[in-house]
Amino acid sequence: MKNTETFEQLESNVRMYCRDVPLVFDTAVGSKIHAEDGREYLDFFAGAGALNYGHNDPRMRDALVEYLSANGVTHGLDLHTSMKRHFLESIKRDLFEPRGWDYKVQFTGPTGADAVEAALKLARKATGRSKIVSFYGAYHGMTAGALAVSGSRTRRVAGLSSDVIFIPYEDGPYGEFDGIAFLDRLARDQGSGSELPAAVIVESVQIQAGVYAASNDWLQQLRKWTQDNGVILICDEIQAGCGRAGDFFGFERSGIQPDLVTCAKSISGFGLPMAIVLIRSQLDVWQPGDHTGTFRGNQLAFLTAQIALSYWRNEEFLKLLSNNIAAMERAVAGFAEIPGIAAGRCRGMIAGVDFGRGNAALAKDAQQRALQAGVLVERCGPNGEVIKLMPPINTPTDQLEQGLKVIGESVAAALAK
Amino acid sequence: MKNTETFEQLESNVRMYCRDVPLVFDTAVGSKIHAEDGREYLDFFAGAGALNYGHNDPRMRDALVEYLSANGVTHGLDLHTSMKRHFLESIKRDLFEPRGWDYKVQFTGPTGADAVEAALKLARKATGRSKIVSFYGAYHGMTAGALAVSGSRTRRVAGLSSDVIFIPYEDGPYGEFDGIAFLDRLARDQGSGSELPAAVIVESVQIQAGVYAASNDWLQQLRKWTQDNGVILICDEIQAGCGRAGDFFGFERSGIQPDLVTCAKSISGFGLPMAIVLIRSQLDVWQPGDHTGTFRGNQLAFLTAQIALSYWRNEEFLKLLSNNIAAMERAVAGFAEIPGIAAGRCRGMIAGVDFGRGNAALAKDAQQRALQAGVLVERCGPNGEVIKLMPPINTPTDQLEQGLKVIGESVAAALAK
Amino acid sequence: MKNTETFEQLESNVRMYCRDVPLVFDTAVGSKIHAEDGREYLDFFAGAGALNYGHNDPRMRDALVEYLSANGVTHGLDLHTSMKRHFLESIKRDLFEPRGWDYKVQFTGPTGADAVEAALKLARKATGRSKIVSFYGAYHGMTAGALAVSGSRTRRVAGLSSDVIFIPYEDGPYGEFDGIAFLDRLARDQGSGSELPAAVIVESVQIQAGVYAASNDWLQQLRKWTQDNGVILICDEIQAGCGRAGDFFGFERSGIQPDLVTCAKSISGFGLPMAIVLIRSQLDVWQPGDHTGTFRGNQLAFLTAQIALSYWRNEEFLKLLSNNIAAMERAVAGFAEIPGIAAGRCRGMIAGVDFGRGNAALAKDAQQRALQAGVLVERCGPNGEVIKLMPPINTPTDQLEQGLKVIGESVAAALAK
Amino acid sequence: MKNTETFEQLESNVRMYCRDVPLVFDTAVGSKIHAEDGREYLDFFAGAGALNYGHNDPRMRDALVEYLSANGVTHGLDLHTSMKRHFLESIKRDLFEPRGWDYKVQFTGPTGADAVEAALKLARKATGRSKIVSFYGAYHGMTAGALAVSGSRTRRVAGLSSDVIFIPYEDGPYGEFDGIAFLDRLARDQGSGSELPAAVIVESVQIQAGVYAASNDWLQQLRKWTQDNGVILICDEIQAGCGRAGDFFGFERSGIQPDLVTCAKSISGFGLPMAIVLIRSQLDVWQPGDHTGTFRGNQLAFLTAQIALSYWRNEEFLKLLSNNIAAMERAVAGFAEIPGIAAGRCRGMIAGVDFGRGNAALAKDAQQRALQAGVLVERCGPNGEVIKLMPPINTPTDQLEQGLKVIGESVAAALAK
Repeated sequence: MKNTETFEQLESNVRMYCRDVPLVFDTAVGSKIHAEDGREYLDFFAGAGALNYGHNDPRMRDALVEYLSANGVTHGLDLHTSMKRHFLESIKRDLFEPRGWDYKVQFTGPTGADAVEAALKLARKATGRSKIVSFYGAYHGMTAGALAVSGSRTRRVAGLSSDVIFIPYEDGPYGEFDGIAFLDRLARDQGSGSELPAAVIVESVQIQAGVYAASNDWLQQLRKWTQDNGVILICDEIQAGCGRAGDFFGFERSGIQPDLVTCAKSISGFGLPMAIVLIRSQLDVWQPGDHTGTFRGNQLAFLTAQIALSYWRNEEFLKLLSNNIAAMERAVAGFAEIPGIAAGRCRGMIAGVDFGRGNAALAKDAQQRALQAGVLVERCGPNGEVIKLMPPINTPTDQLEQGLKVIGESVAAALAK
Repeated sequence: MKNTETFEQLESNVRMYCRDVPLVFDTAVGSKIHAEDGREYLDFFAGAGALNYGHNDPRMRDALVEYLSANGVTHGLDLHTSMKRHFLESIKRDLFEPRGWDYKVQFTGPTGADAVEAALKLARKATGRSKIVSFYGAYHGMTAGALAVSGSRTRRVAGLSSDVIFIPYEDGPYGEFDGIAFLDRLARDQGSGSELPAAVIVESVQIQAGVYAASNDWLQQLRKWTQDNGVILICDEIQAGCGRAGDFFGFERSGIQPDLVTCAKSISGFGLPMAIVLIRSQLDVWQPGDHTGTFRGNQLAFLTAQIALSYWRNEEFLKLLSNNIAAMERAVAGFAEIPGIAAGRCRGMIAGVDFGRGNAALAKDAQQRALQAGVLVERCGPNGEVIKLMPPINTPTDQLEQGLKVIGESVAAALAK
Repeated sequence: MKNTETFEQLESNVRMYCRDVPLVFDTAVGSKIHAEDGREYLDFFAGAGALNYGHNDPRMRDALVEYLSANGVTHGLDLHTSMKRHFLESIKRDLFEPRGWDYKVQFTGPTGADAVEAALKLARKATGRSKIVSFYGAYHGMTAGALAVSGSRTRRVAGLSSDVIFIPYEDGPYGEFDGIAFLDRLARDQGSGSELPAAVIVESVQIQAGVYAASNDWLQQLRKWTQDNGVILICDEIQAGCGRAGDFFGFERSGIQPDLVTCAKSISGFGLPMAIVLIRSQLDVWQPGDHTGTFRGNQLAFLTAQIALSYWRNEEFLKLLSNNIAAMERAVAGFAEIPGIAAGRCRGMIAGVDFGRGNAALAKDAQQRALQAGVLVERCGPNGEVIKLMPPINTPTDQLEQGLKVIGESVAAALAK
Repeated sequence: MKNTETFEQLESNVRMYCRDVPLVFDTAVGSKIHAEDGREYLDFFAGAGALNYGHNDPRMRDALVEYLSANGVTHGLDLHTSMKRHFLESIKRDLFEPRGWDYKVQFTGPTGADAVEAALKLARKATGRSKIVSFYGAYHGMTAGALAVSGSRTRRVAGLSSDVIFIPYEDGPYGEFDGIAFLDRLARDQGSGSELPAAVIVESVQIQAGVYAASNDWLQQLRKWTQDNGVILICDEIQAGCGRAGDFFGFERSGIQPDLVTCAKSISGFGLPMAIVLIRSQLDVWQPGDHTGTFRGNQLAFLTAQIALSYWRNEEFLKLLSNNIAAMERAVAGFAEIPGIAAGRCRGMIAGVDFGRGNAALAKDAQQRALQAGVLVERCGPNGEVIKLMPPINTPTDQLEQGLKVIGESVAAALAK
């Protein structure tokens, strides 16, 4: 019997990533993941950004084992728990205080999409307006509200709200665009067919679109335009945040302060489901129960998240991260020189190796070669033409460099055919 | 310093249940939960249905500890894992085979709302139609798609799809209604202002509305009408399923076979976030990636869910459940006799003690008295006028009876004022 | 060359009524219309209700000739004109004062649909709510707003607002329904999935659905429910009004006073395009220009409309009308007895002879026989199974009886096959 | 009693133009309109474009009198009439054959908005898609479908379809925009959040926005983009057409051939309500009755429209028009030089004298001065800051020049204060 037969028989056709990876994984530590075939792989996919700190971080794992063994509350809905208090204090100490922020924390259902849904709902409630501005190439999730602000044409379905105005992102597969000028016109021209939007939702790095990072200047202009017009700025940091783009928040280098920030994926630090919205305090106009959900707040995730947040005070971790970013940038600069590669884009610990429009098959070939050579990577871009490099951000630098070397060779080999 | 001060300072106003419960919980086992004040409470709230098997079931807990200690894969997105294979086989053995079902399993984002979103999307895709029929009093979640099919007027917000036709449920706070006749007319009269719907989404027990259970006959008629008209029947078993209504599925006693079944809350058995959609195989028209999400599939939940499913083959568990149901029914019949109580409704292990329209304050008083006497319960109904009894279904019968006694006394005391 | 060839070559496929009538008409007076084939026909179609006073009423015609010859303003947009003043005074004298109404007149674009659009818009503006309640079988027009509240499934298209709740009418092809009880429940149950509607739009007689007239009691209950709930009641009198249902307004016999009344079709009395909305004065919350249109107000129609309104003070006209109603009722009662006829329904000067579900072909045959015998009638009902009798209301009684006789014979002959 | 008292008492607050013109008009011929105050005014408003051939054109008036006197059919719904045949033949001879067009004529309800509604509906039906592209500043009418594609923010209401993508027009109050590049990107980028639109709806001259005329080049590019992408091009010629922009169609000078053309306002030539859609024959996918309306087709308008169309074969008329255009252009060039005037824009017989943003009060002052000096003009632009010159296109040149002189003086006087 084939070792993937059970999945083919019983799991819905909707399954996706597993189709490119004919392996069955069993254990994992750090940046290494082990399959039933007995081989170990470098994981440069990292749970699509949910494993920024790698698999089974020993400190987190041991704390979980201890907590469970002591019968710590595992599920508490939104009741008060000692563990939630610890997490809130950790957020305050590690995120709010260093930045001088006066924000509240909302625990949403434990998916990024749910955090986006909550943020959009709150923006509409706070402004009394309904339109949302989003960007070409944006990815915010698959529930109806989040999907309505996601750009991918092929994922759109019946029954979505059309109260969304899409404009091209600062840069993308079809070039640059002056979205701020467009927004300015939208606001000022009373013949624009639209009231002011309730919010703009933006990713500081559009990863699914092919790894396009916004410039500081563009984010600052966007913050200014939203402020000047009383429009709420939502930064969706689900994929770019939690260290992926180099700082804890992807927008951090621009110095802006968003009104709402959505976090998920790596916020728990351990791959456990959790999502939160950070809300500028004066915008916390929620009434009790306005947005609920059984799994809002996840006690086990609270525990591991505190440890993850503490790493941002750890000099060793920050040093490693800095070295890794340098290694990534160097490697990607090199990939960009490989004949046939359209572009290499890197922001912190996320990079895209772009094979160019129409070349998804080549990118897939490179990906398969990397897998055979022991490195697990995924693809992004409009049609999967971009190799997405997303290793755990704390990968030991030698492992990182080894993985990047394998990828470079795989890319070159695919293009050499 | 007040022990809830951190929450008040840092957590969003949206928090809800904790407002009625001025305690901070730390540990829990089975039906008992322990607070920082040193007291132990009987938990008849059970994570709003996420803890049907109680807190920290020792078998599940020990298995988790062992798995974590062995560095089992914790997060795997939708890649194949050994643990997912085990879970799928368990679903097949414990759910599909005994019922003779030919279904597929979709792992959605780990919230009930996400499962509902997926089910609605699939129904629309499979039929090419867009309307959904839902029922007054329905609760399906808070994301835009799920909220659009939820009845509560006060929770509705701008930007929801209006492609929903609401009709009264079989029974509810405003009496009975012949929804099947209404649907029949909707379908047959070409002047009804609507095409056929893509789907009907229904809960076998409307718990949030005040615990109203559908009759077998009504569910059978609904199944017949949907079949006759090529309309997809979605049973939302998120709250009523996983044993809450007495059988594993709340609709089970009616003998119907839905097209899509959504499960969440207690599917993991341990309060860990997980949600799935069961799809009649020939309706599995998904394309790869049509509905994705980072946390779809939860390895730790796969592990505990297998153990939970195995209980349904365990004679001792089934015996206990049967005894508990009898105890619940007896007690609720008694509550219904208390002067001032409008009705007592019980289906399996879920019951509602209805104080009648306008009497939410009395219900809240009873709830507070129960809490002071050591029993944690919540309220439901349009305005919170119904005490919702939702103990772990495997609560030792003596604990169950003790809790029910406390509740009866609290109800009587509230009404005696 | 065939005498309809030009139409087939140059007119869009959308043309409809002409397909059943292979004639080309040239002149017409009163209830008689003359075709190029040299024959004269009794016109029991009457411009689908736009010619309640017959063709080329001599008084109106002569007044038009005189006005045109004197270069009276023909088009004045919404500027003040002497002719508009005359018309407004006529409305006041002949409609408002006899009924003790304090209403305003809005001149909309000269189509019934535009009046409906204006009424819906005003109701939404006045209440700040967006939902509209409409009825199965309703017909209010073909523009997006009017179509959204029209029941016919086959006419619905993409891009319509779904903010409409459809409920069965008091009576219809699929039987009676207690819509008032349904509305009451919709309003009271906070779990009904809907806020209160802005308005209910209703026809006092649903003619397109097959000639179903609302009872006085039902209309009174509807008026009471709307009043009690602060919901605006729009009576669409476009087809049933201007005398068609026996009184000037179709709802008149019930004694109710709607908030908004839409009039078109026969309001000009001469078949000239004009439409108005009558607005209870305190609801006239329009801002200048909120609903505009180039042809709002039609000077020639103002002229003929005054003459038409004056007939309602004319004893001879009222006597004729009364006799005609009696003749219609008698005849329809007779038709209902013809074996094979499912029902005959008559309200004032509108009647339906119902061949029963599935029998549209028989109805069409009867219609064709009537045409060959010199009487032009149309059909209505879900699939055209109802012969719609709609003669000018002031048809000389002998002509009326002659036409009814022809129709009776045609119906009998069609069924005798 | 004040001579406008009746209007104030009985007409809805929605009335608009009359508020700036405290006169009551009674008779009119050609470009002159007479008020009850005994004065005669030059009418440079021309029924907002419904009176391109002036008031009571004697040939049309006499033909109407003759037709009415002979009891010609006045109202015929969509039955065949001799008069409709004449009109269709006239359309063929005067519009289609000279241009080599293979088109069909759809008679819609007699308002421009209804023609727009029909065109949008047909475009959606023909393509199976639902989005429409429209432009900032566009004005297409006040019914829900037409309003949804109109840009004015202040006119938008609840319940409109949001399936519209608005982009800035070629030029406007806020400057130029490369809309074609934007559309190209929208179509090519699969992350644009939108499928291809069903149609683009465009005015060749945006008059309400302040008289901005599209260049030939831009229209040609738009035609090319729509053709290349299988998108339907709707030219809304309701205001710019029928000679207003110099040629019969405003887009004519660009050489493009739209898929659908909407006409209303001056299509009857006499100010009588009529509207049509011209449909490229292969797009005539209507089913019978898909878009109906009682007043579709207007027999009296058919009569006058034939005469109006015949003028386009009349050398004298064309010579006069040519002279008038030259006079308009000269005058407007002069107005643009008046200190304080932001711009003067002229296209054929429509011109805007722009007082610049924020200067609506000055424009209103100029308008009032012109009225006192005997010339009736209206204003347009986002806030009414543009004097709109819209004389009958066949105004005797001396009257035209006299009127233009008065306007120039009024403008100068308003600015000289």
